[in-house]
Amino acid sequence: MRVYVSAPGKVTLFGEHAVVYGQPAIVTSIDRRVHVFAEPRSDGAVTIEARDLRTPGVRVTYREGEVTVETDYGLVLPAISYLHKAVEVASSYLGSRHGVKLVVQSEMPVGAGLGTSAAVAVATVAAYAYSGGYELSKDEIARLGWEVEKKVQGIASPMDTSIVTYGGFMRIRYSGEEVERVSLRVGAELPILLAYVEREFRTGDMVRMVRERVTRYPQLYGRIIELVGEVVGAAERALLNHDLEELGLMMNLNHGLLDSLGVSTRRLNEVVYAARSSGALGAKLTGAGGGGCVIALSRPEKMGVVEAVMGFLSEFTMRTSLGSEGVRVEVGEKTGGAALTRTTCLRSSWCT
Amino acid sequence: MRVYVSAPGKVTLFGEHAVVYGQPAIVTSIDRRVHVFAEPRSDGAVTIEARDLRTPGVRVTYREGEVTVETDYGLVLPAISYLHKAVEVASSYLGSRHGVKLVVQSEMPVGAGLGTSAAVAVATVAAYAYSGGYELSKDEIARLGWEVEKKVQGIASPMDTSIVTYGGFMRIRYSGEEVERVSLRVGAELPILLAYVEREFRTGDMVRMVRERVTRYPQLYGRIIELVGEVVGAAERALLNHDLEELGLMMNLNHGLLDSLGVSTRRLNEVVYAARSSGALGAKLTGAGGGGCVIALSRPEKMGVVEAVMGFLSEFTMRTSLGSEGVRVEVGEKTGGAALTRTTCLRSSWCT
Repeated sequence: MRVYVSAPGKVTLFGEHAVVYGQPAIVTSIDRRVHVFAEPRSDGAVTIEARDLRTPGVRVTYREGEVTVETDYGLVLPAISYLHKAVEVASSYLGSRHGVKLVVQSEMPVGAGLGTSAAVAVATVAAYAYSGGYELSKDEIARLGWEVEKKVQGIASPMDTSIVTYGGFMRIRYSGEEVERVSLRVGAELPILLAYVEREFRTGDMVRMVRERVTRYPQLYGRIIELVGEVVGAAERALLNHDLEELGLMMNLNHGLLDSLGVSTRRLNEVVYAARSSGALGAKLTGAGGGGCVIALSRPEKMGVVEAVMGFLSEFTMRTSLGSEGVRVEVGEKTGGAALTRTTCLRSSWCT
Repeated sequence: MRVYVSAPGKVTLFGEHAVVYGQPAIVTSIDRRVHVFAEPRSDGAVTIEARDLRTPGVRVTYREGEVTVETDYGLVLPAISYLHKAVEVASSYLGSRHGVKLVVQSEMPVGAGLGTSAAVAVATVAAYAYSGGYELSKDEIARLGWEVEKKVQGIASPMDTSIVTYGGFMRIRYSGEEVERVSLRVGAELPILLAYVEREFRTGDMVRMVRERVTRYPQLYGRIIELVGEVVGAAERALLNHDLEELGLMMNLNHGLLDSLGVSTRRLNEVVYAARSSGALGAKLTGAGGGGCVIALSRPEKMGVVEAVMGFLSEFTMRTSLGSEGVRVEVGEKTGGAALTRTTCLRSSWCT
């Protein structure tokens, strides 16, 4: 049957990098989503059409391991591999394989640290299962999505796949296969600005560099990691109290500690400081650093100015509200068509 | 008798702000100096001529509390007040007052955090005493110089007056009137680049802001302060081993922690990151922050590029070698004249 699944992107509000060492982090979903439409195929083939993964359009078909990609963009294959692996992981888990046409579309750029790959993995796992007539719990979807990320990347944190599955605000902590998730009830709207600057270093390089420093100087970098954990605690209280000033202060503090770890860059700092000096209550890099996204918290009346300044200094800026719904599955003839129309129209809102 | 005294400027290599909370800091003298020439006057009057304290020239005369300043520059009086108080403190300590003509000239800008006021205080105390036929030990000079700073500023750290008196590299720690100074034997030359960006906040404001944060969040900001103390320890080892890479890493780490405390600014970060990305081994703000100076450590072959980039982004840049001689007193007819000629020619090297 036809299925339309969407999953949100995410941002790490507090605790990136430190989360790798067992400290808690606070993550949240954003209101930009990845959309996956699935329709069973009677011929047993799996076709993947990626309408907007940072490319103008691409068509991939594979049957029994043979893959045809109709595009000349090098960035596409990595993104497609999440869909590919999601089908593999889901069909192996379900113990059944069926042909399916998958159409994927993203409202967010790939590789910006917004969890696009987790959203693709999670949405595709769900879309594949439901299109074959199966149902999955959120726990199952999150776990299978994590499997997909591990298979594609070799190593992966359960953070992204958790938050894009459940949505909302979440305090997460993990160690090995153990994952502790606490949903945070944040009553009010929390709009933020996101700005993207081109990545100079890859996530893996950043994680490795921090690892080397923590190992070599445990009394210095190891203690920064612990301190980030403390900041996460204070930030959680500020978040639950909706104390925006304190939340902003904690963002600034967390950014400084990330800078101490060595994962900020000149351009990230430029955007962070420009946001602060144009009126943001707080600003920090989000994710692995070495480029990528900056988030800024601002009172509504200052949003326009902060956005303009951040936009001037970055590749693109967008406003987003936080804590939106996690993975959403709609089954039936009508929903599929509506979804596609909707994603097509949303596309123009962040790029081109 | 005629006396020529000079005292060096200083930079804080590691530990600014944390030193206020009893942590150690590493300070060093630079090769730019303040020069004070003193000549007794038989009429009992004290005249002060400030040839270059960020102004084109100014003449101040005072006699029994009556002060005449021949200039219209608002910045001059604060600088003059260090000379004024130095005469007061020295004559009160010596129990004798004599007339003197004082000529002061600086190779460094006032207010850049390079310890100019401490150098003025220390050099003037010594010049006044020696011109009256007295001798002072370095301990006495340092202590009286600190008195001068306290009298002018209300509150002052003994750090600046200590390092400009003794010169070299020094680990310093203090609590109330207790000052612990350890001279560090750094064998090799250590050239650095200094860049100045205009101050947006005053030292007092920065110190107060940090104080409020440490008081309000001891588990966060208080621990950053402690961590800075650890960085100072590691930096001292790197300095003694002449391990420039590690020294640079510790500079970056210290800068990140200062950023966490909230004392960096957009422009300071801009210069810091530009220095790093143009080849510096490390770069950090030095002093209270909120503007002021950035120091960068670079291998000799990269100096030119780093200097050019820092110069482009700052009000001025200068190379300096560290650890130069502390306060120096020369007595006699000839020395005084030589000093004045020398400072006049040096002046053009940093400003105008």
